[in-house]
Amino acid sequence: MSVKLTDVAKKAGVSPTTVSRVINNYGYLSQKTIEKVHRAMEDLNYQPNSMARSLQGKGTQLIGLIFPSVSNPFFGELAVKIEHRLFDKGYKVILCNSGNDTEKEREYLRMLAANKVDGIIAGAHNLGIPEYQNVDLPIISFDRYLDKGIPIVSSDNFQGGSLATEHLYQRGSRRIAVFTGTNESDSPTNERLEGYLSVMKSYHLQPLVYQFPLEQSAFLKETEISSILSKNNLDGIFCTDDLTALLVLNKASDLGISVPDQLKVVGYDSSEFIQNYYPYLSTISQPVDQFVDLLIDLLLKRVEKKDIELEANYQLPVQLLQGKTS
Amino acid sequence: MSVKLTDVAKKAGVSPTTVSRVINNYGYLSQKTIEKVHRAMEDLNYQPNSMARSLQGKGTQLIGLIFPSVSNPFFGELAVKIEHRLFDKGYKVILCNSGNDTEKEREYLRMLAANKVDGIIAGAHNLGIPEYQNVDLPIISFDRYLDKGIPIVSSDNFQGGSLATEHLYQRGSRRIAVFTGTNESDSPTNERLEGYLSVMKSYHLQPLVYQFPLEQSAFLKETEISSILSKNNLDGIFCTDDLTALLVLNKASDLGISVPDQLKVVGYDSSEFIQNYYPYLSTISQPVDQFVDLLIDLLLKRVEKKDIELEANYQLPVQLLQGKTS
Repeated sequence: MSVKLTDVAKKAGVSPTTVSRVINNYGYLSQKTIEKVHRAMEDLNYQPNSMARSLQGKGTQLIGLIFPSVSNPFFGELAVKIEHRLFDKGYKVILCNSGNDTEKEREYLRMLAANKVDGIIAGAHNLGIPEYQNVDLPIISFDRYLDKGIPIVSSDNFQGGSLATEHLYQRGSRRIAVFTGTNESDSPTNERLEGYLSVMKSYHLQPLVYQFPLEQSAFLKETEISSILSKNNLDGIFCTDDLTALLVLNKASDLGISVPDQLKVVGYDSSEFIQNYYPYLSTISQPVDQFVDLLIDLLLKRVEKKDIELEANYQLPVQLLQGKTS
Repeated sequence: MSVKLTDVAKKAGVSPTTVSRVINNYGYLSQKTIEKVHRAMEDLNYQPNSMARSLQGKGTQLIGLIFPSVSNPFFGELAVKIEHRLFDKGYKVILCNSGNDTEKEREYLRMLAANKVDGIIAGAHNLGIPEYQNVDLPIISFDRYLDKGIPIVSSDNFQGGSLATEHLYQRGSRRIAVFTGTNESDSPTNERLEGYLSVMKSYHLQPLVYQFPLEQSAFLKETEISSILSKNNLDGIFCTDDLTALLVLNKASDLGISVPDQLKVVGYDSSEFIQNYYPYLSTISQPVDQFVDLLIDLLLKRVEKKDIELEANYQLPVQLLQGKTS
């Protein structure tokens, strides 16, 4: 196996771009760094002209990143970590926030294909986008079914839904509702609802399913939540995302419903943001760092070898973080 | 003045890329869209060959975006809005989260220059980056002094600091502290502190300044905040960013300090995220949409005409949003 630029970088303890700069004698480098890289190149018997192939011959070193919106701290964290990790590998990221705008997502895919990015990581919500089928680029999906042949990385959504519901039951809740999105066909996140339904069934409890459209504003959602809370005498709510859980907590407080005494709440996602700023929220924690590692590993495998065989689904385990809301 | 592609797009009520696709007869377009665009082109007497100049002749249609981290919802929102607006103008965004990593920011600048992006919007925290002086690209800064000749778009930070402090005083606070970052030379955000100091001086009150390093983890910051709150008997705190205000509220709650009765808290930033999920936080609201318009307008002016004369500073007014924490 031939020695790669990244091997030199690892050995020298610097980034691949630093190695490339040493080789090309370009930019601001300390004498110490230069020596470290030269030593690593000698130790590994690295031939700089293989670098030319690996760095310059190989596409644009651009990766497209399509997420609903990085203003959602969960996607923001994912984007930051993906960008960091890809930067260390010499790639830059083109960011697309596709929101609920199917047309924008389609245009982006075409633009990315025209720009000849090396690959795409996509975790958007929009459905019915034929370009995913047609774009001839390596694509890895996060938590969404895009097309046959596009591997999906996600958490074990069924396990997460079950864990949350079981926990609410064990904490004494019986009128347990689920607050979730409107169903998207084939989306792995539907499994959160399935996990909930399965536990409710096992305890012979009546499922109480409330679905909110993804494109709904926080304000409208809040109004609806207020009305649900005042009418339905719920004592447990599993929200399939943390932000909805925050709205529930705000509205419960406005209505004088005491959490966790009268109402227990569990969310889903557990970004670092939530862990730092809402440490009291009980939630299902997704393994963000492992997502990032896996998404990039799979994508770069496909970039390296277009028709490499990959699984259809990669499901990573989740865990319950109990805060003060349950 | 010649008619531009964007004029046609506006007239037809579609995006510029849609106009470009109609002209090039490329992609998925409804008959209705095609007709709308053709009608707009006729109405405006638009000559498609000027489009070739404006769309194809002009660089890579890539803009570099350098922010500390889009996992901070304020920067996440800015990034999403900038990306949306630039997309409508036919540009794509390369995202760099520079964090506290000066070396990464420097490498990014060189990579962006090497990739021949059309321009850069930068709002990072790192200091001492000579590349901002050397990179021969249009750059507009958000809220940071980068280099002579690089215009800065920011809120009126002095006004914001004064407003927050004056408000705390009017609400009865006297032992008013400011929680802010460590001083960065020439950074416009220092003016938030100056605004605070000026109001404290006008009332002959003792300033109580607590500075937290930007690279400090939320956990360490929280520990420090806990210790400050238990020792200093503060009755008002102006936090120069909302996230610090959230930590203060969490710690006050842990320590049994009642907000706003015993302690009043005002933040700064007021992203949509905060407005949606922490509507009870009193804060200084920055005009994000106007930031985005201005940043893009200035940048594209420089892209269009490299040596166009621009102001050194563009300060936009802020307002106080009073929630329940003051």
